[in-house]
Amino acid sequence: MTDDARRSSQEDAINRIRQHHREVNVDALCDAIISGDRKSLSEAITICESTNPRDATLASQILLKCLPHSGKSVRVGITGVPGVGKSTFIDSFGTYLISLGKKVAVLAIDPSSEISRGSILGDKTRMERLSMQDMAFIRPSPSANSLGGVARKTRESVILCEAAGFDVILIETVGVGQSETAVHAMTDFFLLLMLAGAGDQLQGIKRGIMEMCDGMLITKSDGDNIKKAMAAKAEYSSALHLFPSRENGWTPQVDVVSSVSETGIDKAWSMITQFVEWQKARGIFDTNRQQQDINWMHQDIRDRLISEFYNSEENKLQISDAEKLVKEGKMTAFDAASRVLSKKL
Amino acid sequence: MTDDARRSSQEDAINRIRQHHREVNVDALCDAIISGDRKSLSEAITICESTNPRDATLASQILLKCLPHSGKSVRVGITGVPGVGKSTFIDSFGTYLISLGKKVAVLAIDPSSEISRGSILGDKTRMERLSMQDMAFIRPSPSANSLGGVARKTRESVILCEAAGFDVILIETVGVGQSETAVHAMTDFFLLLMLAGAGDQLQGIKRGIMEMCDGMLITKSDGDNIKKAMAAKAEYSSALHLFPSRENGWTPQVDVVSSVSETGIDKAWSMITQFVEWQKARGIFDTNRQQQDINWMHQDIRDRLISEFYNSEENKLQISDAEKLVKEGKMTAFDAASRVLSKKL
Repeated sequence: MTDDARRSSQEDAINRIRQHHREVNVDALCDAIISGDRKSLSEAITICESTNPRDATLASQILLKCLPHSGKSVRVGITGVPGVGKSTFIDSFGTYLISLGKKVAVLAIDPSSEISRGSILGDKTRMERLSMQDMAFIRPSPSANSLGGVARKTRESVILCEAAGFDVILIETVGVGQSETAVHAMTDFFLLLMLAGAGDQLQGIKRGIMEMCDGMLITKSDGDNIKKAMAAKAEYSSALHLFPSRENGWTPQVDVVSSVSETGIDKAWSMITQFVEWQKARGIFDTNRQQQDINWMHQDIRDRLISEFYNSEENKLQISDAEKLVKEGKMTAFDAASRVLSKKL
Repeated sequence: MTDDARRSSQEDAINRIRQHHREVNVDALCDAIISGDRKSLSEAITICESTNPRDATLASQILLKCLPHSGKSVRVGITGVPGVGKSTFIDSFGTYLISLGKKVAVLAIDPSSEISRGSILGDKTRMERLSMQDMAFIRPSPSANSLGGVARKTRESVILCEAAGFDVILIETVGVGQSETAVHAMTDFFLLLMLAGAGDQLQGIKRGIMEMCDGMLITKSDGDNIKKAMAAKAEYSSALHLFPSRENGWTPQVDVVSSVSETGIDKAWSMITQFVEWQKARGIFDTNRQQQDINWMHQDIRDRLISEFYNSEENKLQISDAEKLVKEGKMTAFDAASRVLSKKL
């Protein structure tokens, strides 16, 4: 399916729901989701992703009903630069988890997808094996005009997938922007995929991402690459030890993995389960999630206060005038802000 | 002078100005500042730091008059963990700059000073030599109930000091919190002081600070410590090379310094001037400052929108209820935010 065809079929689906949404029986839909019906899950996510204000009430009702059934999965964030092999890793990793009897959902946060028309997860065929599994659910990145919007929709999808009984939620993102912070703030474990390479291995990874990760995997550790991958593992291990210990006291682990030779995939999962058990033993797993939820509430409040202010046409003019005055050194930043806020420019 | 005595004398000064501020002749005060009169500079800073709303108009007028005379200094941020020797370094460094014919102002950002009663720069005697110099101006951290407030007051002090003809503004901060980001956002060069030590040198330095710095100095490189300091220099140099190159393409330099044996002090200055010349040659020195000013304006707008919202008593109650509902899993974060924003909880 081409990108355009995919988008148009997605829009068709949204339109169908728009037309019929008054007929949606929230109770029946939620019961179907909770019983694990994938079609109902898809439909509910589409309603939550809809930008039609009439769907907002419906989305709220669905989420409220699903909320008590959510929270039981392990939420794993996965990031890495383009080319690191995220899709093939997720394909192998998800298939492995299914072999352990887990139900696996794959979501994505990609704020650029509106422009690039789905640069990640745009095409399910990038995860060939996983997409054919009944135990897997793959959902492309929602489109929205802001990272805040994308992040919110993804958080809601997590709730719905959990209500549908998925045991592991993998949230993919591209390691080049602000979206990692958003993924980090909604997951239990943050996994960074890295390429082995001489010298400038950290190139392309935005500063700070390395310090957010709970574990790191060097990908493509196969054939001639194994030696380089092992060297990178040693280098990153010592680099991660150089960084101050996490607030929680955990030292991130580093390992090598190959999606081609299927090696190290199991180690990725044991890395995650060790971390989860370690957190649960300290009682910080649940408090961490509660704190994440409360943080998201405050984040939403702040985002929307600011976006409402900045989206007002009157304020836009004032802000543009204020920027000119500040740039020309005719007004202090604080004075300009005061005048914009009091609409006195 | 004890801390209490110092504070009470500071409060006396503020009260004096409050009583007489209607009599302040803005033109005369600003002319005196611009002619380099230190007493007038102190008075103007005190007016800007005042929390009395009646002083706000006066402060705006003074800043507006001084603004065209500002901008000619080099603004240097200096950070490092307590015990790294910031005060003694600034004492030596400032004295050296004065020997080159520079006028040096020392300011501080310390959001904790309200609680600790001035843990940095609280006592001018910590900079014994510098405080006795006519070419130096030392000002303790302003007290304010938020980092945003402290940062704003410090930015305004920078403008006033520059109008008074100071060539180098040193802004000191403690390397343990969010204040480094604020200092980084208002300076041309960000200098990190580090202690030499085996293994865990990075302990205590918050993640991200190393990546913000434009240059690093290993302090206390004297006597038996020289060898350790040189080893740390090598280690940090390679660590800084591992990080991705700065957006501007600059690779931070690392050197050793001793305030006791007065070695390396000149290298600190040549590090800064090289960076400034390098930036000016690329035309990014001025655009960087303009962008900083515009960023501060937007920061002020956002901070005040949010603080006004959160400070409303009605909203406080709603927010506290919403937190409870989210924590108990009875409402999604987004729903809770919507209700708080529409006051419908």
